[in-house]
Amino acid sequence: MRCCLQAVLSPLPVSPTEEAAITVSELGEFGTVERVIARSGLAHTTVVGPGDDAAVLNLGGGLLVASTDLLVEGRHFRRDWAPAKDIGHRAAAANLADIAAMGARPTGLLVGLAMPGDLPIAWLDDLYEGLREECQPFGAAVLGGDVVESKTLILAVSALGDMKGARPVTRDGALVGHRVAVAGRLGYAAAGLAVLGRGFRSPGSVVAAYRRPEVPYAAGPQAAALGASAMCDVSDGLLRDAGTVAAGSSVRIVLDVAKFMVPDVLRDVGTAMNTDPLRWIFTGGDDHALLACFPPHVELPAPWREVGWVEAGTGVRVAGLPDEGRELAGSGFAHWG
Amino acid sequence: MRCCLQAVLSPLPVSPTEEAAITVSELGEFGTVERVIARSGLAHTTVVGPGDDAAVLNLGGGLLVASTDLLVEGRHFRRDWAPAKDIGHRAAAANLADIAAMGARPTGLLVGLAMPGDLPIAWLDDLYEGLREECQPFGAAVLGGDVVESKTLILAVSALGDMKGARPVTRDGALVGHRVAVAGRLGYAAAGLAVLGRGFRSPGSVVAAYRRPEVPYAAGPQAAALGASAMCDVSDGLLRDAGTVAAGSSVRIVLDVAKFMVPDVLRDVGTAMNTDPLRWIFTGGDDHALLACFPPHVELPAPWREVGWVEAGTGVRVAGLPDEGRELAGSGFAHWG
Repeated sequence: MRCCLQAVLSPLPVSPTEEAAITVSELGEFGTVERVIARSGLAHTTVVGPGDDAAVLNLGGGLLVASTDLLVEGRHFRRDWAPAKDIGHRAAAANLADIAAMGARPTGLLVGLAMPGDLPIAWLDDLYEGLREECQPFGAAVLGGDVVESKTLILAVSALGDMKGARPVTRDGALVGHRVAVAGRLGYAAAGLAVLGRGFRSPGSVVAAYRRPEVPYAAGPQAAALGASAMCDVSDGLLRDAGTVAAGSSVRIVLDVAKFMVPDVLRDVGTAMNTDPLRWIFTGGDDHALLACFPPHVELPAPWREVGWVEAGTGVRVAGLPDEGRELAGSGFAHWG
Repeated sequence: MRCCLQAVLSPLPVSPTEEAAITVSELGEFGTVERVIARSGLAHTTVVGPGDDAAVLNLGGGLLVASTDLLVEGRHFRRDWAPAKDIGHRAAAANLADIAAMGARPTGLLVGLAMPGDLPIAWLDDLYEGLREECQPFGAAVLGGDVVESKTLILAVSALGDMKGARPVTRDGALVGHRVAVAGRLGYAAAGLAVLGRGFRSPGSVVAAYRRPEVPYAAGPQAAALGASAMCDVSDGLLRDAGTVAAGSSVRIVLDVAKFMVPDVLRDVGTAMNTDPLRWIFTGGDDHALLACFPPHVELPAPWREVGWVEAGTGVRVAGLPDEGRELAGSGFAHWG
């Protein structure tokens, strides 16, 4: 449920009949997400429905947070790019980060595995070790799941969390004048992916960042306690995810390029790859950093660092870049307000 | 998480090293489920862990129930055998029945969709209509999900439920002397599948039963309130599911064949298909009936009907059949105590 992308694609200029005849790939991933969100209905217990990092339910005694991600081999992971244990860590992290991004604490995972019959059991053992280890710091675990045979290897991971009395922090509460801050690393996993894509295995720090993200889980409940007005998990890239907060909140998010230190290792990999490392920082997912907006008076403790502000308008701009970030965003970036 | 099959397959007689080198298909579905259950860990909040119809978590204010199923096209459903809306109903029912089988009330679904790009949006619309309709009687809904592109069409559905103050009814509480009862239809969906498999579309009642099961949801919380000692969803067939209750509870389940009325429609289809309709009743899944054990003094209200008893021993036997059901169970039935 990282695909929280209301209004990312404009409605197609077709009639309802023509619309129903088009295919999923014609509508695109974000258009399809929008479509199923509109058709999901609303439960009596719904506090936050489909479209945010995670759903929130009122179960009488407390607020439950729930999120689902599908990871498809070849698209979201490759068995030759990471050991099974790291794939387990990544799959768990992708979902647990969605829980943290609501301000909640993870309680457990449900893991559905569709897998080819020739998958070695040893691979499965290692996958579970990774899933389990990623859950351990919270006292969470794999609560249950299902296994089926399939030609394509797919991990369907759902995460559950508990608001523990806090108010869920959604993507639609950012207010003009609020400060924008980030917790966690940006661009490391994207640089690691670029390295792996060229057939290299070093520098180890970025490859490791891709294989096993270091999610700032505790920063989620911390932001909720500090009174964050909006928050999200950065899984589709900072510009894109900031764009969903801007769209959801009907504001403009400004990111100040001067506040983004480019770490030496990203600069070195960028030079080697002939890539501007800012591209990884602003458009890379997979590090699962958190982005949040805070009222101006809030003192931001570590790991939160201020990177911009909220102003009137729409979309996202990067202050300090001549084109305000358009080139970084690239042509594939449909959401520009 | 219907695959609640502790001890269904004996451990393979190999060393740990040899075991890790074998594949998922060599270990088999149930062996693989057992393996991942053993590697799932235990959360601080776990009340019922992996291996039952659904997991149960203590979230302070109440008990949350959660379950996951994967449905793979070609294996669990076929687009040419049922309209998308019915596939939505079935996918929701398969999971909501797991929630009912713990004695809980459903609160919502998370739906992950891995789908080929040429899938018509109209199919997706209809699928969601079915999912939504199956949830409506409970005030539940689709809470969230994820969509990804994949060559294989897979529905990953997780269901959440609320115990509403009741005690979860697991598979491992059956006691010698307790009565065994069933709620809901048996064998209808299997007969419908047999009809569809031969290229027919009638009789309509069994085809409809396959396409859209009529799950006795309310019977789950009702059984919990009546003090049921064990309960499960019949999704792998009555003999197999009763077998997991027997194994979990270290007892023998006896089903009395005289208590199973063969409906006329099943008898007719059986004659036409040259199949003993008892085979569908005792081994068919997909109707999502509920099986439960009750203390002897409990008066059983509708829709519960007594079908047998619990005695000392292991496994399942069908009283009133010369071979106690072995032939019905067939050679594929590994679990015979």
